[in-house]
Amino acid sequence: MDQARIDFQTHPDRYRHWKLSFPEAYGGEVARLGLDVREDAPIRPGYQLKLNSYDLGVDIELADAIARIRFEHPKTRAVFITSDKPRIFSSGANIYMLATSSHAFKVNFCKFTNETRIHLEELSKESGIGSLAALNGTSSGGGYELALACDDILLVDDGSSVVSLPEAPLLGVLPGTGGLTRLSDKRKVRRDLADVFATMAEGVRGKRAVEWRLVEEIAGKSQFDGALAKRIEAMRGRAKKSGAEHAISWPALEVERSEAGSDYAFVKLRIDRAKRVARIILAGPGAGEPTTLAAIRERGASQWALRAFRELDDALLDLRFNHPTLGLVLLETEGDCERVVSLDAALAAQAGDPLVREIILHMRRVLRRLDITARSIFALVRPESCFAGSLLELCLAADRVYMKDGDPAAKMAMSPLNRGPLPTYSGLSRLEVRFLGEPGRAEELARTGAILETREAVEKGLVTFAPDDIDWDDEIRVAIEERTSLSPDALTGLEQNIRFAGPETMETKIFGRLSAWQNWIFQRPNAVGASGALTRYGKPERPEFDFGRT
Amino acid sequence: MDQARIDFQTHPDRYRHWKLSFPEAYGGEVARLGLDVREDAPIRPGYQLKLNSYDLGVDIELADAIARIRFEHPKTRAVFITSDKPRIFSSGANIYMLATSSHAFKVNFCKFTNETRIHLEELSKESGIGSLAALNGTSSGGGYELALACDDILLVDDGSSVVSLPEAPLLGVLPGTGGLTRLSDKRKVRRDLADVFATMAEGVRGKRAVEWRLVEEIAGKSQFDGALAKRIEAMRGRAKKSGAEHAISWPALEVERSEAGSDYAFVKLRIDRAKRVARIILAGPGAGEPTTLAAIRERGASQWALRAFRELDDALLDLRFNHPTLGLVLLETEGDCERVVSLDAALAAQAGDPLVREIILHMRRVLRRLDITARSIFALVRPESCFAGSLLELCLAADRVYMKDGDPAAKMAMSPLNRGPLPTYSGLSRLEVRFLGEPGRAEELARTGAILETREAVEKGLVTFAPDDIDWDDEIRVAIEERTSLSPDALTGLEQNIRFAGPETMETKIFGRLSAWQNWIFQRPNAVGASGALTRYGKPERPEFDFGRT
Repeated sequence: MDQARIDFQTHPDRYRHWKLSFPEAYGGEVARLGLDVREDAPIRPGYQLKLNSYDLGVDIELADAIARIRFEHPKTRAVFITSDKPRIFSSGANIYMLATSSHAFKVNFCKFTNETRIHLEELSKESGIGSLAALNGTSSGGGYELALACDDILLVDDGSSVVSLPEAPLLGVLPGTGGLTRLSDKRKVRRDLADVFATMAEGVRGKRAVEWRLVEEIAGKSQFDGALAKRIEAMRGRAKKSGAEHAISWPALEVERSEAGSDYAFVKLRIDRAKRVARIILAGPGAGEPTTLAAIRERGASQWALRAFRELDDALLDLRFNHPTLGLVLLETEGDCERVVSLDAALAAQAGDPLVREIILHMRRVLRRLDITARSIFALVRPESCFAGSLLELCLAADRVYMKDGDPAAKMAMSPLNRGPLPTYSGLSRLEVRFLGEPGRAEELARTGAILETREAVEKGLVTFAPDDIDWDDEIRVAIEERTSLSPDALTGLEQNIRFAGPETMETKIFGRLSAWQNWIFQRPNAVGASGALTRYGKPERPEFDFGRT
Repeated sequence: MDQARIDFQTHPDRYRHWKLSFPEAYGGEVARLGLDVREDAPIRPGYQLKLNSYDLGVDIELADAIARIRFEHPKTRAVFITSDKPRIFSSGANIYMLATSSHAFKVNFCKFTNETRIHLEELSKESGIGSLAALNGTSSGGGYELALACDDILLVDDGSSVVSLPEAPLLGVLPGTGGLTRLSDKRKVRRDLADVFATMAEGVRGKRAVEWRLVEEIAGKSQFDGALAKRIEAMRGRAKKSGAEHAISWPALEVERSEAGSDYAFVKLRIDRAKRVARIILAGPGAGEPTTLAAIRERGASQWALRAFRELDDALLDLRFNHPTLGLVLLETEGDCERVVSLDAALAAQAGDPLVREIILHMRRVLRRLDITARSIFALVRPESCFAGSLLELCLAADRVYMKDGDPAAKMAMSPLNRGPLPTYSGLSRLEVRFLGEPGRAEELARTGAILETREAVEKGLVTFAPDDIDWDDEIRVAIEERTSLSPDALTGLEQNIRFAGPETMETKIFGRLSAWQNWIFQRPNAVGASGALTRYGKPERPEFDFGRT
């Protein structure tokens, strides 16, 4: 898997594992996601996806389906996820896939899986589309975590179907990379019960599952469909219609791949394997971008505000999975600051419209994907750049900002989108994170509509270094060389910690804390050594542990 | 070091690395901690403590000094830490010690070091005794982290002395296990500047150190003492006198060690190496414990409220460092619930008194040490137990509570100390953490003065399992066997995550997030492999990295 290119583009017609439908029974207003994993269609050869277990391929389809529900099916009022296989909802991430994957792949797989689940939660929180896990069979490990990402969980009470997090007892690793946080912080399961639940292989069923807050409801086999319908109707009833919905199509991105990188419409990814550096060059909006609601609807997925960010998203995933050794990303933009600002302003002014809201939420998701991408990120601001508004967020997401001091001057600008609509996972805007030590500074800056030239941007605290024309090339070259000479592991930990100052949320806990523990455990000999639990899973020998505690 | 017993008892007369004094110039009201590490006195042989670098032995003395400032020198109004060596404040944790220590030792060393620094911060926050790092020379890595733990940092401006966190560039690991969090969350250094600072080996000095918020003030060599005196006088002036101080002596704990464990006055530690289980049996207060202020002062360190918790603290540190394979701790108590409750009530009623405040803060620190001890913890509640009030916190800190259901009944009880004076590192009380999903429940329970027998305690949600007389022995035996059969790494991550539901603080970030990343990095081949940066430090060969990013 680490060799073959992973492609994140798919389409419901090509789904191998999920069926996305909009049953007539709910007037087409409810999305049904049926999981029926094809055993013989793993994303790379070498294992079988038995018992609705999943690999990255299954999750790529789920992520695609969630995006399509937002954009292609905006009339959706609720989502339910269920299994199209008898007696099993999902047995979680495929163990043989995990046992045969590289450490880096496992970490990135867990990250993508969690992002996708957070997207499901965001669908409920931000777009008002609630979700129900209709567990018509046993739901284990990552399968139960998927259920935890839904608002409500309904479990069939058939005397055998359980929910379980058996990873610790069976595999010697943590439940997924979010399961514990969702258990403790989202569902607020009492901590001693969470301890019992997460250390038992057999799981919990029936009344006890309700008492322990593991599911909302249980229903006998014959009552299951009725209970499901009742919950879905209630969810549908609670959903607020927030304006006229307009569906747009969600076409595959057009991209040309070569040894040198990828060429999308607005984004270029340039890779330098020898130097281990990637450049992402994002072109700002052209002259004819839509600003009226009618034009925004009409232009759909081809408008800059959606397409450029989709392309950036695809480039980031490409980097994570297909270019693991590129340690540094240089973010560049080309275009007109004022055009970005006026486009942002138009979006912000019409944010109450369901489609515009989704366009802004999409930007937010892509920027958050950037925030938690484990590569060093330097933004390079030159006279030709357009780091303004939504694109200024790229600078604010970067570990460092280099801005050229010369003639013509380099520029930055604020837009209404810097004032809060694009918060990081911590809930703060990137300006607020940056100026944590200077309360009020972020607010004050965000209200500045003006174009900031280099000297002023430096003064306002937006720039790390501002070399002049003469020094620029050398200084950038040295900075790149220094950065890429450092231990990639130390950088991953360092960036992760420095990027997330301030308050914590379930999401920052999942990525900043639980993932860190999982990374650690995932490479301990007790898990992946010759006699580790993950290695020995499914084999006759029992794992052997070094029982030393840390 | 992992073989030789580590002893946490010491005394200023025996300090090898620190000098604790109370200079006449400040009327004896200011503690001066002078660091002068003896190169030839590491805690175990094999390395030299050059350039005021430190190992666990240095930190054990610091922890002892902080405790003595509280109890033996209650008139102290401020503390300053400085170096008694020329041109160097501290070069941080000793690299050769780290490079030759086991993974488990490194992790526990970092944990203890951080706890000690948090104790220094607590001294300021809770006891009103501010602290100043008087950096009369370069302060690197853990040395700068010690400075970060102080309220103010004064750096000599002599053209060469810097503050620095060079771990990432020099060693391929994170700065300490708290440095980044204190940089980002305590001092709120701008994130791009923190990135630059933590990736440069050479550090920052002079005006730039002030501009980047790395220190409060710089002062030339000839102005240094004056600037120090001015800051200390200001700190002393701000300190509020909160009542008549009464000094008590802080004698060494009396303990008999044997193969079977340790016998203190109120605490017994019993170890079973074959089963990998430790029992901690804590005796409740006897009949004659002091409850009036006069008696509390007179009895000093020998009163139960201090001595029992000191003994528990020592037993926990003994477990962490000297018994790494004991995976499960069984917490037991013996005594009278009502006596604990009335003693707690007397302490709570007099919490305004400086000595009583310190006694309660000491309990808080010991319970927090328990919270973050990486062992499974089961509390066993029997008819002879006295899990009430401050001792009920042991149950609430445990991963599970087993309570015997029979005749005579087992009992629990609440006291005023369960209502908030003993919060976990998250700021919540242990009752609030437990009932995160049931707002108001903790408050309601904490106001219950009554004794709760088993059935009622189960109903109130305080008990995990309540086997009866007949099942008790078998059920406990099976639970122990099951627990100790699991991967110790998975349990460490799992417990760490489940114990800290709810809000996050700088402290929970340090232990829950930064430590996790450090654990991970500390065992990556890029740090500790044959050609890793930590292994190759000080050797002629450069480290070689696998540049794959995760």
